[in-house]
Amino acid sequence: MSQISINHDEVDIVIGALQLDLKSFMEEWRPVFSLFHLIIVKDPDLKGELEIPAGFNFDLYTKSDIDGVVGSSSNAISFSGYSCRYFGYLMSRKKYIISIDDDCIPARDSAGNFVDAVSQHITNLSTPATPFFFNTLYDPFCKGADFVRGYPFSLRSGVDCGLSCGLWLNLADLDAPTQALKPELRNTRYVDAVLTVPARTMMPVSGINISFNRELVGPALLPAFRLAKEGNLRWETVEDIWTGMCVKVVCDQLRLGVKSGLPYVWRKERGDAIESLKKEWEGVKLMEDVVPFFQSLRLSTSAATAEDCLSEIAAVVKEQLAPANPVFARAAETMVEWVKLWKRVQTQ
Amino acid sequence: MSQISINHDEVDIVIGALQLDLKSFMEEWRPVFSLFHLIIVKDPDLKGELEIPAGFNFDLYTKSDIDGVVGSSSNAISFSGYSCRYFGYLMSRKKYIISIDDDCIPARDSAGNFVDAVSQHITNLSTPATPFFFNTLYDPFCKGADFVRGYPFSLRSGVDCGLSCGLWLNLADLDAPTQALKPELRNTRYVDAVLTVPARTMMPVSGINISFNRELVGPALLPAFRLAKEGNLRWETVEDIWTGMCVKVVCDQLRLGVKSGLPYVWRKERGDAIESLKKEWEGVKLMEDVVPFFQSLRLSTSAATAEDCLSEIAAVVKEQLAPANPVFARAAETMVEWVKLWKRVQTQ
Repeated sequence: MSQISINHDEVDIVIGALQLDLKSFMEEWRPVFSLFHLIIVKDPDLKGELEIPAGFNFDLYTKSDIDGVVGSSSNAISFSGYSCRYFGYLMSRKKYIISIDDDCIPARDSAGNFVDAVSQHITNLSTPATPFFFNTLYDPFCKGADFVRGYPFSLRSGVDCGLSCGLWLNLADLDAPTQALKPELRNTRYVDAVLTVPARTMMPVSGINISFNRELVGPALLPAFRLAKEGNLRWETVEDIWTGMCVKVVCDQLRLGVKSGLPYVWRKERGDAIESLKKEWEGVKLMEDVVPFFQSLRLSTSAATAEDCLSEIAAVVKEQLAPANPVFARAAETMVEWVKLWKRVQTQ
Repeated sequence: MSQISINHDEVDIVIGALQLDLKSFMEEWRPVFSLFHLIIVKDPDLKGELEIPAGFNFDLYTKSDIDGVVGSSSNAISFSGYSCRYFGYLMSRKKYIISIDDDCIPARDSAGNFVDAVSQHITNLSTPATPFFFNTLYDPFCKGADFVRGYPFSLRSGVDCGLSCGLWLNLADLDAPTQALKPELRNTRYVDAVLTVPARTMMPVSGINISFNRELVGPALLPAFRLAKEGNLRWETVEDIWTGMCVKVVCDQLRLGVKSGLPYVWRKERGDAIESLKKEWEGVKLMEDVVPFFQSLRLSTSAATAEDCLSEIAAVVKEQLAPANPVFARAAETMVEWVKLWKRVQTQ
């Protein structure tokens, strides 16, 4: 990892609390999280009092805060379950936002060292990305790396990085069918690399362990795609997959980069994949339409901000996807509502 | 690595001999190379007798063999220096070809184990590639890996892999300016991953450590792009970079995959980067035109074989690039000659 200096005032760590007891989660992360301001958003469906250990600097938002800000202005936007974190994104005023699921603890690298996921995310976001030509030695801005012979010098300064997608050891982010078919499968391979996902290439962005530059792409991180029977397990949702493709299209349009790879987190067990199979297939099936849609999506040259891009994406979703399935109609409506909400809240 | 069974009769290992003494090179590789048929092609500019240790099964080709096959049919194609290996590609009748520079020895992985580069290349080539959607956990066909949540099931069967590009530890494949600026820079990062380079994404393919499916893309591995003052050091040539982009365009057109990553080889020191600076800048400058050209190149739907694709690429090179620089005119002419030669020799 490059030695970059981190300005702690530029960072919010957003935690969506899907369980009341955050004690062990936050103790595991204490060496890192205690250095930053945290935004904790309690799942509005969760009843009871959150347990948060002392010694952290945080703002806590609950259902009443959400209702107070969003009020009756929108029926479309839901902050239930994993989507509660989006309210934290909305309230942040920092340059960088980092978000990690509350069932993840710090990983250890191949040498057994504690992985500081926050530093690595900030490094990814604050060094350039190279989406226009693939560097076979991965991120040339990592310590000890460089551009490979043949890499055009005119492309070596790179572009700003909008999104950094981290990975997971132990329980990988598989869908319920895969997890159910291979219940013993665990991810043990620590791949010591960060890379820029090339322009115009789509990928499944997982919301488990991500960070982004709020000033550049903030509004694109939005809770738009909700399945009817979605629950509080990652493999039941594709909300983050949709969001990730929105962000990728926005980054491609605005000539920003998306990085994937380091840092890893260690994902603990949660839920029963077999049980989840009953709910998951809707999301799995929808991907067959969602992925080709985003792959072929091209925005007009006039879309020059993330908000512009999102409004345009919403319009095309409504036109091309919504007739086939009401879930897409709701997604398009939610995206429009979200852009309005973002503009209102962010200018307050 | 997946446990695949290797049919040794399907593989040729092609070695371009740029130095007379191959003893230490071949002894280092003996545990692997002794299991396969080798094609050794002596650089036609090299004077003297090759030294090859006993115990290998090989065919050796020299200048007189090259002249016998190519004869006076072409003045355009040169098999000098690194390009001598292309004569070996031309003579092979095997499904898979592997080629490793003669200044590389087997690498060791992070655990200190000998890396069997040939097995890994065959694994890469004989398992599917996934160029149409990026899998964030890298090659889903590696042992212990799978597709990440959100990956469309319809894309999970993948496509055939045409080309596998391995990497290098110790002396990385940097251009002369970078090597001269950072003489101490060595690549020590063992990234335990293979990935499919996405469709329509270009990358700098290095010829140091590669393999390919000859039946699918063989003719695209061709010696077309030669600099006037090119010598026998990798950083003086961009022949393989050009070739790599031709293969990538062919793979994209034919819906085949290109993988990059494992296996590593250990590259020893050769040459003086400061001295090479005098020669290298031509190649570095040309990349500024070459990369955008290949990135924007789209072939007609009628181009259904590698030979078709190459003829079409040659025509566009002649039309769009050749007017600016005679090196491109020569490249286009050589590509046309090569396709003729390939068809003639391969049907003999």
